[in-house]
Amino acid sequence: MMSQMKAICMQNGAISLNEIDVPSPGPGQVLVKSLACGICGSDLHITRHGDEVFDIYKKLGVMPDVDGENPGIMLGHEFSAEVVEYGVDTTGDIPIGNRVTCVPILMTMGGAGVGVTPGLYGAYSEYFIVDEALLIPIPENVSSTAAAITEPLAVGLHAVNRGDIDTDEVALVAGCGPIGLAAIAALKIRGVKHIVASDPQAAKCEIAQQFGATHTVDPTQEDEVAFAASLAGDKRVVIFECVGVHQLINSFILRAPAKATLVITGIHTADTTVNFGYATVKEMDIRFSYYYNPEEFAESLQNIAEGKVDWQKMCTGKVGIDGVSDAFATLLKPNDHIKVIIEPWRNGALEQVKG
Amino acid sequence: MMSQMKAICMQNGAISLNEIDVPSPGPGQVLVKSLACGICGSDLHITRHGDEVFDIYKKLGVMPDVDGENPGIMLGHEFSAEVVEYGVDTTGDIPIGNRVTCVPILMTMGGAGVGVTPGLYGAYSEYFIVDEALLIPIPENVSSTAAAITEPLAVGLHAVNRGDIDTDEVALVAGCGPIGLAAIAALKIRGVKHIVASDPQAAKCEIAQQFGATHTVDPTQEDEVAFAASLAGDKRVVIFECVGVHQLINSFILRAPAKATLVITGIHTADTTVNFGYATVKEMDIRFSYYYNPEEFAESLQNIAEGKVDWQKMCTGKVGIDGVSDAFATLLKPNDHIKVIIEPWRNGALEQVKG
Repeated sequence: MMSQMKAICMQNGAISLNEIDVPSPGPGQVLVKSLACGICGSDLHITRHGDEVFDIYKKLGVMPDVDGENPGIMLGHEFSAEVVEYGVDTTGDIPIGNRVTCVPILMTMGGAGVGVTPGLYGAYSEYFIVDEALLIPIPENVSSTAAAITEPLAVGLHAVNRGDIDTDEVALVAGCGPIGLAAIAALKIRGVKHIVASDPQAAKCEIAQQFGATHTVDPTQEDEVAFAASLAGDKRVVIFECVGVHQLINSFILRAPAKATLVITGIHTADTTVNFGYATVKEMDIRFSYYYNPEEFAESLQNIAEGKVDWQKMCTGKVGIDGVSDAFATLLKPNDHIKVIIEPWRNGALEQVKG
Repeated sequence: MMSQMKAICMQNGAISLNEIDVPSPGPGQVLVKSLACGICGSDLHITRHGDEVFDIYKKLGVMPDVDGENPGIMLGHEFSAEVVEYGVDTTGDIPIGNRVTCVPILMTMGGAGVGVTPGLYGAYSEYFIVDEALLIPIPENVSSTAAAITEPLAVGLHAVNRGDIDTDEVALVAGCGPIGLAAIAALKIRGVKHIVASDPQAAKCEIAQQFGATHTVDPTQEDEVAFAASLAGDKRVVIFECVGVHQLINSFILRAPAKATLVITGIHTADTTVNFGYATVKEMDIRFSYYYNPEEFAESLQNIAEGKVDWQKMCTGKVGIDGVSDAFATLLKPNDHIKVIIEPWRNGALEQVKG
């Protein structure tokens, strides 16, 4: 085996391609080769606002003990991979060379997140480390690209479960990026009859319809909350915030109908100003959705395997490992992409993919 | 019947005692004589921050069409009363002279709130108007003072129902004023095993224990959230915010353990700064509790009748109608009172009541 590998590292907002040692799997761990890894909105957020994110980690006491104020992170947590080498204390049940995915957590490292934790390896790299106990084989009919979409689908499914929405209540999905589309897919599978999608980009609204949105609204032209409320009558409106703009939270509180539930999926690390008086008078629920459980992750992969999610429509771009830095520069500016997949085993600039 | 009555009116933060016409009950309505009416924290809040409250009402489109920027309100919504006169379209089932209480809403006026709406009569006055359809007779063994405590008990019960707490989860009730004590009473009746009460006033902590708190914490000396979390282990902590200080919301978000639920009962009409990043990482729920339903109101009266709530400990003062203005001056400054009851049918300055 090669002893060196290419790895993407983000430090102080800069993305660099480095040559580092291929890691060795520890007890219970597996070395895997990254086949495909999605660029997540949270990867972009931590690149732009690393200080805010690390400040929260520090205040919560979950910041690893690393040198410097803004440590480097090897990104990548939405992956499919190939089994390369087992560490000790493993069963080796899944043959070397088989394809796997998993919840991006290392229980063998105290539950640290793969691709978000300083000092761990991420799936933007050629190789990285996962726990054997969490591995799920990728079904034969599921491509490696599709399997890398499992993770954002699980985030959307979890948000819908957090909203605990009945089929006759009205869902408003604000923002039709990957998480918004994943929520729409989960809402459709759940059987929710009224799914309103809102996005200022017409192309994203069109994809939202293909995913299952029954209505679309351009929020720059029409009040999307009022529209959802008008559909709801006396039924509850569940608003899924999938935009990631913190000022929207107060706006939703102000505009929501009585008894509305607001599910926050965006990662809002900046201080924001709100007036909770409106939430009180309306007896709102604000539920924060961050992660998912292993069952939701497995269910999302199963949904792909059964053809229940038109995942191809989410994948708008692919890039090789030497194009990641330029791809970040593109994605950090306004753009039309939904999900860009890194293929760390090859070189190549960001190119459009037709869904 | 007398054609004139004494009525307390709050306008621009000033409490005045006026002589006005006794109102006539309309269709479906009943004229009642106020026997006892609690001074609510929201009455004090609207007196101090009327502009903020009215601003919210206006933005929600529920502000009645009245002259001036800061209209007068005849306060009083926590009452017991005596039936005086029925309007047309009523059954008159409850005999004249009998004692009643009810949810302070006029369905005959589009659901407007008694004692909080400009243009309506409140229970701080000698007489006021209620809906016949909502009347509940006061059981013989329940005093008029006790019956006036029904409303805050219902607020506390509703907050506990909003928290949807299991008996083996940990409740933290922050603030041991009337709503905090009412929440503690409801938690005890629900059978919750760990009820932590926090208040900087030792006397209130003592009453909280008498209401059912299993632990008390002085939050100026010890982190009450950390204490509750240490009791909870891997069980959920449900924090009931019964303080009414909006800066506490961000503090609770910062200090809460993972998966905690925060039930907000305070009325926070001022803008406040929060960082939702912590709520996201912890997947918190923030649930706003404002009102109660008729079943919760009736259950609270029943709890008093069955001796399940030591309501006497909540009632710390009584005052006649000519003492209300001075009582407000006292209550708007730091004080030891929990609940002061107005008896609008008599005169008299605020006096302490021994629970």
